[in-house]
Amino acid sequence: MAKIAQRYLDIDPWKLIESGFHEDRALVSESLFSLSNEYMGVRGYFDEGYVKETLIGTYFNGIYEIPKDIRRSHYKGISDKLHYMVNAANPFYVRIYIGDELHIFDPKKIEGYSRTLDFKTGEATRTYQVSNLFEITFKKILNMKTYQIAHQKVIVKPITYFGSITLAFGIDFNTMHWGKPGYWDLIEAKKNLSLGATTTNQSVYVGYKLDTRSDYQSSVTIENKLNLETLNLNLNTTIEIDKTIVSLIDKTKIRDLIFFEEEANKLLSVSSYDQTLKDNTKFFEEYWAKNDIQINGDALNQQGIRYCLFQLVGTYQGVSEHNNIGAKGLTGEAYSGHAFWDSETYCIPVYLFTNPKAAKNLLMFRYNTLSQARKRAKELDCNGACYPIATLNGDEACDLWQHASLQFQPTSAVAYAIWHYVKNTKDTEFLIHYGFEMLVEIARFFSSRGQYNHDETKFGYYGVMGPDEFQMMVNHNAYTNLLAKTSMEYLIEVYETYQKNHKVQEVMNKLNLKDSEIEVMRRKCQLMYLPYDETTKIYEQHEGFHDLPHLDIHSIPVTDFPLYANWSYDRIYRNDMIKQPDVLMFMFLYSTQFDLETKKANYDYYEPKTIHESSLSPSIHSILASELGYKKEALDFFGFATRMDLDDYNRNAREGLHITSIAAAWVNIVYGFGGLRSDGEIIKLSPYCPESWTSYQFHLQLFGSNIQVYVDKENITLTLDKDLDEPIEIYHEVYKLKKGIYKIHVAN
Amino acid sequence: MAKIAQRYLDIDPWKLIESGFHEDRALVSESLFSLSNEYMGVRGYFDEGYVKETLIGTYFNGIYEIPKDIRRSHYKGISDKLHYMVNAANPFYVRIYIGDELHIFDPKKIEGYSRTLDFKTGEATRTYQVSNLFEITFKKILNMKTYQIAHQKVIVKPITYFGSITLAFGIDFNTMHWGKPGYWDLIEAKKNLSLGATTTNQSVYVGYKLDTRSDYQSSVTIENKLNLETLNLNLNTTIEIDKTIVSLIDKTKIRDLIFFEEEANKLLSVSSYDQTLKDNTKFFEEYWAKNDIQINGDALNQQGIRYCLFQLVGTYQGVSEHNNIGAKGLTGEAYSGHAFWDSETYCIPVYLFTNPKAAKNLLMFRYNTLSQARKRAKELDCNGACYPIATLNGDEACDLWQHASLQFQPTSAVAYAIWHYVKNTKDTEFLIHYGFEMLVEIARFFSSRGQYNHDETKFGYYGVMGPDEFQMMVNHNAYTNLLAKTSMEYLIEVYETYQKNHKVQEVMNKLNLKDSEIEVMRRKCQLMYLPYDETTKIYEQHEGFHDLPHLDIHSIPVTDFPLYANWSYDRIYRNDMIKQPDVLMFMFLYSTQFDLETKKANYDYYEPKTIHESSLSPSIHSILASELGYKKEALDFFGFATRMDLDDYNRNAREGLHITSIAAAWVNIVYGFGGLRSDGEIIKLSPYCPESWTSYQFHLQLFGSNIQVYVDKENITLTLDKDLDEPIEIYHEVYKLKKGIYKIHVAN
Repeated sequence: MAKIAQRYLDIDPWKLIESGFHEDRALVSESLFSLSNEYMGVRGYFDEGYVKETLIGTYFNGIYEIPKDIRRSHYKGISDKLHYMVNAANPFYVRIYIGDELHIFDPKKIEGYSRTLDFKTGEATRTYQVSNLFEITFKKILNMKTYQIAHQKVIVKPITYFGSITLAFGIDFNTMHWGKPGYWDLIEAKKNLSLGATTTNQSVYVGYKLDTRSDYQSSVTIENKLNLETLNLNLNTTIEIDKTIVSLIDKTKIRDLIFFEEEANKLLSVSSYDQTLKDNTKFFEEYWAKNDIQINGDALNQQGIRYCLFQLVGTYQGVSEHNNIGAKGLTGEAYSGHAFWDSETYCIPVYLFTNPKAAKNLLMFRYNTLSQARKRAKELDCNGACYPIATLNGDEACDLWQHASLQFQPTSAVAYAIWHYVKNTKDTEFLIHYGFEMLVEIARFFSSRGQYNHDETKFGYYGVMGPDEFQMMVNHNAYTNLLAKTSMEYLIEVYETYQKNHKVQEVMNKLNLKDSEIEVMRRKCQLMYLPYDETTKIYEQHEGFHDLPHLDIHSIPVTDFPLYANWSYDRIYRNDMIKQPDVLMFMFLYSTQFDLETKKANYDYYEPKTIHESSLSPSIHSILASELGYKKEALDFFGFATRMDLDDYNRNAREGLHITSIAAAWVNIVYGFGGLRSDGEIIKLSPYCPESWTSYQFHLQLFGSNIQVYVDKENITLTLDKDLDEPIEIYHEVYKLKKGIYKIHVAN
Repeated sequence: MAKIAQRYLDIDPWKLIESGFHEDRALVSESLFSLSNEYMGVRGYFDEGYVKETLIGTYFNGIYEIPKDIRRSHYKGISDKLHYMVNAANPFYVRIYIGDELHIFDPKKIEGYSRTLDFKTGEATRTYQVSNLFEITFKKILNMKTYQIAHQKVIVKPITYFGSITLAFGIDFNTMHWGKPGYWDLIEAKKNLSLGATTTNQSVYVGYKLDTRSDYQSSVTIENKLNLETLNLNLNTTIEIDKTIVSLIDKTKIRDLIFFEEEANKLLSVSSYDQTLKDNTKFFEEYWAKNDIQINGDALNQQGIRYCLFQLVGTYQGVSEHNNIGAKGLTGEAYSGHAFWDSETYCIPVYLFTNPKAAKNLLMFRYNTLSQARKRAKELDCNGACYPIATLNGDEACDLWQHASLQFQPTSAVAYAIWHYVKNTKDTEFLIHYGFEMLVEIARFFSSRGQYNHDETKFGYYGVMGPDEFQMMVNHNAYTNLLAKTSMEYLIEVYETYQKNHKVQEVMNKLNLKDSEIEVMRRKCQLMYLPYDETTKIYEQHEGFHDLPHLDIHSIPVTDFPLYANWSYDRIYRNDMIKQPDVLMFMFLYSTQFDLETKKANYDYYEPKTIHESSLSPSIHSILASELGYKKEALDFFGFATRMDLDDYNRNAREGLHITSIAAAWVNIVYGFGGLRSDGEIIKLSPYCPESWTSYQFHLQLFGSNIQVYVDKENITLTLDKDLDEPIEIYHEVYKLKKGIYKIHVAN
């Protein structure tokens, strides 16, 4: 469990800086210096090529491939709709010849290396000298608004070499994925413009234009899926060439090439590096003004949290209701680009209080994939809709039945997120037009998948796996039972409130929802079983958990980790060790429904059994620890939240960034130290400042107001840009806040 | 659950007869007319070719291939040693040309078809007329003693056609397996003699000689893995040609070709069709004299049980301690030729009381594969030895962790079988030299895999699947707990009895077995938990079973069967439906340890929940029903035991015969109607004659005596060929039987 920082970057509040080349961390740097704008993501690989291992990765949100040559299961309900986010074209391909000699990045031949990523512009810069001959600089930037546009800038400055130089700029569809080539079929290629290529179901088109202030001769070749424009120049003064790239995707593979050409040309004609730099500067100015988190007196976490926020807005900002948030964002191939229940559970709270439109669009993703969720429920011999464990396109992409057929937290997370979103935005329009239909189908799924026990005195879920993935095929998992109950209860509440509404009636007719069905659900909710001991106040994680063989998690040798690699597959499933919060998870989600004493009893019981193998585990524990006054533990758990990837705590940042953990870092600060509670009748805050910080500051977007919350050891200072329509509770006192500044003493 | 007879064969007590060709049952006939002699098996396919679907299958016991191109799991403990019995050469290949026209078996062009299989010789004969031109007869026979030798006889008798006829006899290694070619690489081929071919790890050599009384010209070609000898003849009188085939296998691929040639020539020189017919006649005379079962007044079951016994001796007679019994014997590709716990649980009781040497050799198979079982235990992070769920060579061939990592009945079955064998043979030599070492490793496995519950008051198995495969990942499965306990207890007993024995001490030293380890096991046995209710006398199948959602198995629509094809994979695992006996299974194995009242309580509780999806389930229920006086149920359960394949009750006889179900049929008659009990202090018998039979008779090989047991409505008549050294209890009375005949009144 030892998580040790592997620090090698400079500390700076607004930048990522690598001074000197760290060869052993080359792949980690590729991940860390990734750029993305929700639409596309590009790893910080070497445009000019690298002599050693590299992962040249460019990904588009929702562009996937279907695995071939796999042995499919014959069993019903085991998904055969597997798909993964596939590495697409490399539009930054460049090859440089000094005279006749090809220059590829070779750590042995360079000096003066430095690399930066600027959180205020999204510009990544890499510069170095080659054998005292010349200096070369590469810049990359993705336009945060006109997201189809990306730029590359190559600057070559002579030092002692003055002579011929050749630069060949390419669009390369010879992408490797999982170490193998051959994913893309070229459908048409033309000079400069469109190089269309397809996966099984989708297409990607990439066009570009070059802009250089120097004279040059150019020739174009299109061979082997590589569209290459070669410029022959003379290096007598600094050469600067901009490549503007336009990437267009077609998720349904139905558009004609001609439309892409038109669109590409239009976008290219109005784009330039300088324009994008200007656009981005404005974009980030507004972003930081509304979203910045300050951590004063802790330079490491300051840089860490800003990096998190930078990557988070890059991964998702609600551009499209057909996009989602992969566990690794758009920065690598691990987890196959899939979105998990993390999107609803960790990301929606962040967006809900920073960018509610984005929160809504994440929910719309689920609405738009409701038909797949319906099919999935049928595959499982159930009614309604079952949302996938892992997906890009709405289909279940996980073929492990023990997860995909037994875990229902993605489904309940959608219902919870609808409830949470509507409660904190009052967006009844969304509820009626989209939320209600999802809720009906989710409730139907839970109603049909649940079973009565032998004498029909208890209702609940048999043969399930809760959020704690170390307990498989259990009965009456408290989390599953509770969330199924709240999902059905919320439907009943919405049904009772809005059943006279015209749109709601339309949905009821379409889905043939009758009173009688609601009554059946009501009875199931009444009999929903929650294993709970009145005297100890402890909820049993599932029926029989208390009597499981005890494993002292501290007795596990460090060399046994990660357990999935070193333990026999079944071994984690037969003791009281916990992977990630399960009972404590629902105490976080429904925080206001459990008193402090109950939380304490359950925290004290479950936390010592938890190994936090999921990177999403510590934040929930930190939040509860804050509430229980376990301030040291709270800060310890927070310890590696903001710098998980920067310091490579999990030793796998090379594979891509832990994007949804970034959301968990935000949740950790705002719900933990800030004490936000958003599941009750009224929004609550009860911030405190961790001992080792001097102060911190975060923002909340609440019912149209932006509230800046500044917390130091004595006071919290709230700055509102507008009157707040709804009351808010701060340290158990209810306020009606107007535009302006409020100062309130920190409670103890 | 409706099992309906699909009868199409004639009824005969000593033969299988198909009168007229049943085209829709062609593949079923191929299975039913299979021949085998433990060493090899050959399906009753068409030597001359068939215009429609056929499965040309020839298999050698223990000759396997390793699957390629499969996606292997990265999880530890999921077996990567998969292997399957691979279809080998077709040595009966023959092509017939009438003039220039190729004759392939075509149902449209033939008449007068008949086919027989003679249980007294093992000779299969197939004869028919072609368009009134000529009559053709094919005979096949495998030598039951010189098991490398097989014969084919082709007889062509002119009717109206007199002219040239060409017969081409081949050895064909272009075998299809699972519908695909390409399994064998030819290493050398010579005229007439050896056509050697290899799989990944093993080799098969086939030689032959032709014997004909007619003049002929012959030419040999060896092309495309087909060794073909073509004879040009004149059909003026009946032509009869015998092909004698010798098949030699090399399981370790180390022998030189020259040795095979020598051995093949030697065997061929002394073999002939007539000699084998003579050998087999003698073999079966002796076999039936000692093993025949008569069922008088029930011609269907009479033919059925003789067919069972015929196929059983063909599959296994104890020739080699490196052979085992596949679930489908050597008759098809289903179940991949794998041996399961059926070998110990259903087959060993049969051999133990008919051919004890064969029972011992089945145990020696486990001794010979102990090292693989040790490795398997290690893969599972356990000590000792864990025997595979499915295997040909001792390695675990099942890559489904939910079976291979959670089911331990193969391991406990080995311990039980050692105990059962030694108890009923007094073969302490075997116990000391082989059994003890296996017992130590088995007990070690159970000691290390088991766990104490939370307060360490109970010991047992967490995360297991018992014999009932409808309950996965359960805790304290009563069968698993009890059999682990008896396995460890038996080791302790043997240890205490023989620890002064030199050989035992040698093993103790080798395995570093100490008193202290025995004491730990003793404590685990003492605390082994068996969920049991004193008042109801019901053993709970596993902790929590009683409270599972109830499913009325009669409410399942017939169209839902087989459930594995129509239900979502997880659905069978979350109710109280049972696939096959679990609690009732151990009440059968340790019959004398449970009183009638307890058996009745458990039978009445569990049987109505059982759908008997395993073909091995009904026999155990029939035996218990007999004991409980449920005579109608007992006969109903027996109903399709003897004719499961003949009447194709399971609709899948085309894939191969249910060989281990055949063993279960023997067990059903002898333990059920015969009332044999062999798990107590003394062998017991309490036979009765089912109402619809007039009488029946079976044999028991007991401590060197052969006892013929004849049962009619009034009496049982015991005929002993030797004095019986041990006492025997018949209807609660103890007898010391001598050579001779005893008549005892049937008890009510």
